[in-house]
Amino acid sequence: MSVTELESLDTIVSLAKARGFIFQSSEIYGGLGAVYDYGPLGAELKRNIRELWWKEMTQRHDNIVGLDAAIFMHPKVWKASGHVDGFNDPMIDDKQSNKRYRADMLVEGHIAKLRGKGKEEEADELQKLLDTAGSREGLCKDLHNIIMDNEIRAPESGAFDWTEVRQFNLMFKTQFGATSSADDDDAVYLRPETAQGIFVNFKNVMDTARQKIPFGIAQVGKAFRNEVVARQFVFRMREFEQMEMQYFVEPGTDGESYENWLSKRLKWHKTLGIREHKLRTHPHPKDKLAHYAASAADIEYQYPIGWQEVEGIHNRTDFDLSQHQEYSGKKLQYYDQKKQKRYTPYVIETSIGLDRAVMMALCDAYREEEVDGDTRTVLKLNPEIAPTKVGIFPLIKKDKLQDLAHKIESDLRADYKVLYDESGSIGKRYRRQDEAGTPFCITVDFDGVESEGEDTVTIRYRDDMTQDRVPVSRLREVIDDKMKSWKPA
Amino acid sequence: MSVTELESLDTIVSLAKARGFIFQSSEIYGGLGAVYDYGPLGAELKRNIRELWWKEMTQRHDNIVGLDAAIFMHPKVWKASGHVDGFNDPMIDDKQSNKRYRADMLVEGHIAKLRGKGKEEEADELQKLLDTAGSREGLCKDLHNIIMDNEIRAPESGAFDWTEVRQFNLMFKTQFGATSSADDDDAVYLRPETAQGIFVNFKNVMDTARQKIPFGIAQVGKAFRNEVVARQFVFRMREFEQMEMQYFVEPGTDGESYENWLSKRLKWHKTLGIREHKLRTHPHPKDKLAHYAASAADIEYQYPIGWQEVEGIHNRTDFDLSQHQEYSGKKLQYYDQKKQKRYTPYVIETSIGLDRAVMMALCDAYREEEVDGDTRTVLKLNPEIAPTKVGIFPLIKKDKLQDLAHKIESDLRADYKVLYDESGSIGKRYRRQDEAGTPFCITVDFDGVESEGEDTVTIRYRDDMTQDRVPVSRLREVIDDKMKSWKPA
Repeated sequence: MSVTELESLDTIVSLAKARGFIFQSSEIYGGLGAVYDYGPLGAELKRNIRELWWKEMTQRHDNIVGLDAAIFMHPKVWKASGHVDGFNDPMIDDKQSNKRYRADMLVEGHIAKLRGKGKEEEADELQKLLDTAGSREGLCKDLHNIIMDNEIRAPESGAFDWTEVRQFNLMFKTQFGATSSADDDDAVYLRPETAQGIFVNFKNVMDTARQKIPFGIAQVGKAFRNEVVARQFVFRMREFEQMEMQYFVEPGTDGESYENWLSKRLKWHKTLGIREHKLRTHPHPKDKLAHYAASAADIEYQYPIGWQEVEGIHNRTDFDLSQHQEYSGKKLQYYDQKKQKRYTPYVIETSIGLDRAVMMALCDAYREEEVDGDTRTVLKLNPEIAPTKVGIFPLIKKDKLQDLAHKIESDLRADYKVLYDESGSIGKRYRRQDEAGTPFCITVDFDGVESEGEDTVTIRYRDDMTQDRVPVSRLREVIDDKMKSWKPA
Repeated sequence: MSVTELESLDTIVSLAKARGFIFQSSEIYGGLGAVYDYGPLGAELKRNIRELWWKEMTQRHDNIVGLDAAIFMHPKVWKASGHVDGFNDPMIDDKQSNKRYRADMLVEGHIAKLRGKGKEEEADELQKLLDTAGSREGLCKDLHNIIMDNEIRAPESGAFDWTEVRQFNLMFKTQFGATSSADDDDAVYLRPETAQGIFVNFKNVMDTARQKIPFGIAQVGKAFRNEVVARQFVFRMREFEQMEMQYFVEPGTDGESYENWLSKRLKWHKTLGIREHKLRTHPHPKDKLAHYAASAADIEYQYPIGWQEVEGIHNRTDFDLSQHQEYSGKKLQYYDQKKQKRYTPYVIETSIGLDRAVMMALCDAYREEEVDGDTRTVLKLNPEIAPTKVGIFPLIKKDKLQDLAHKIESDLRADYKVLYDESGSIGKRYRRQDEAGTPFCITVDFDGVESEGEDTVTIRYRDDMTQDRVPVSRLREVIDDKMKSWKPA
């Protein structure tokens, strides 16, 4: 059988829309840039991945507790974290079109153009200038000089009529309505990361959850970034969902804990059903680390757009707790009773983008197979995360078959997300469920109903399309067994 | 035994903080008004309620599908829905203190003061004026006149130095960064309700989910309202979580469907474990209905602050779909093939505040009981929603007991959220779990380990403090049975 894997992201974008996984946000109004809505199948897939992560963290580990902090936080949080002053992109405006561009990306675009024309030497030189931008007269001025010196034009208007380069903060700002004065001190931001909700609650959790270091706090929630160049489907959105865990450790044990979590998290992606050869870890070189990090690595997946980060593991040191201690004036330390020692814990962070995980699951599961001269599109999702677990079909619309099918449906519905379907040929019904990633389909036929003894049905497996005839009473057992023994193919 | 129920909301607020259910947001920075964070126990309780609702809607009903639309939506959505023009509170500013007040609440405060002084007649007259505000020169002018005529002073500064009354929109506004011009047309709002995400995706869901009317779309998510007078703990917050389901029906069948959902939803609150006599439905009188509603009722719970809405059931007619059809220019209709009839569906909405449901569950479960001359505080939560299901305690710190306790812990951890605790007296450990609402505690003692044959342990039930001695192999069965047969006491 000829099998084709996913070649282009567009294929997933189309399937996601056609089958109801992911829609463009506010589509009937022409859409909203870099924001997406999850349809019926996507909402379940996302939920299932979130659920697995939450259980892995808070149920399987007796020293990790959950948290659900609000999106709104006190403005000082973002002063302390460095986001008010440091979470910026260098932007430049084309005065003719009023369009805004990221200055470094303009230069990158120009470099690509040069290479396209075979001007490799010129391109290399420019790349060197870009890599060292910030080292001469400051980032904004350096980038502006590069754009001026190379007469880089606005991609859309073609004009060469630029403003200065300015730092543009990526946080969305809004205003609380309690006072009538609208000065900037009242600005409330939409959190650009969920992590700070954990740091700010460190003391509260310590005081109530009776945990000893090392322990972790896990959280799932929305975060928001005013990305100017947002693109690549749900990979980089203005509104996205993070699953973060901050693990508090004694300084000196942070290196080992970091390595430990990096390997633990990589393993988790495999249990999620992602194929091993599509995953890798990518450590950040020391000179590229964020200001708060002592070490950092990405877990990357090979998307059709290349190897990209799904999850980041960071040794954040005691940066965040120290900052919040300074800005809030509250002690954010830990007292180790056994060692009679007080210290500010170090933090190992695991931070995964839920939307990127959904996109990874879809990309990894996608196959096109030639079957009987026809193309079957199938999502070979781990049954644990499949939106629908079981499709139930009466072979034809006859009472006898429909009755038994409905009986099986209501039996299984208590434990699984099931779907009853009686329209179209059995082949068509299978194909629909293949595209939805439904791992099991049960067909009720006359052979099974009219045979002696107990009723039997056929159960058909999505991945290899084989079928078994099974007594109705054994269905749950067969499904559970197959779910547990599933491996990505 | 003397049992006391919850008398004041403060008791729950204290317990919630002390045990790690709910913290003030950004507490180390002095808090953020009307925003709260869920701690380890609260996050689990909230999750469990959300989970039950989601399963009830999307798994138990074969004609309800899930959706997960973004918080950000196209600005035109809120034009069409009426929120840009109509979602306002009448506000007035005290020029001396720069504080802003809701004009109608100022008047209400004044009426209460009059009654306090025994001036019933004056109060009644003023109440009548307030009830008819808007019928004379418009709402703002009428309210302003009342405040002026009665010389109502600012509660905090005592000044009588008011601005005009102005309409103040309750939506939080922010700005997308794609263009450099900052005019108001670029304003993006944080959704004040999740419902519109469902209406805007109606066509996409219809096109992909193969549902026939009647069918529903369910969604859980955050919504935001810039409440000026936000208070009463998590009851009225600026950021809150809604669980909404929109049920699309044929016009003419909406009345029956509305009644149906009202009774279904009331029943659900009972299965959640809320005591029947604390629940009631409260239909809205016809003259108090929102502009989009043909009928509406609240499901109310008797909180310590009085009977208050937890959930609303509304017949929204075809208002929303018609508006979006007009504003988007896209057909949002349904074609009934059997009846060969095209129409705009009517919508029955069930809308529950998840935070209010959490608060209801805490209030309803709270008891103080006199036990052996001591007071036991206990949360008699439905085991299904209890944050921790099982506490596991070795009687004392001896290898033999700890080993078996850990074995039981790791056995049960796969299926339940469990907690291992070996510190303090058994009595203290029980009390801690009582306050956390943990329904089952397992104690491993020498009697059970050293006896002939299979190891046994005692399992202790939170609600009545009775205990059973149970073989280890039967623990799961006993727990599952007790969970299924649980009733609120």
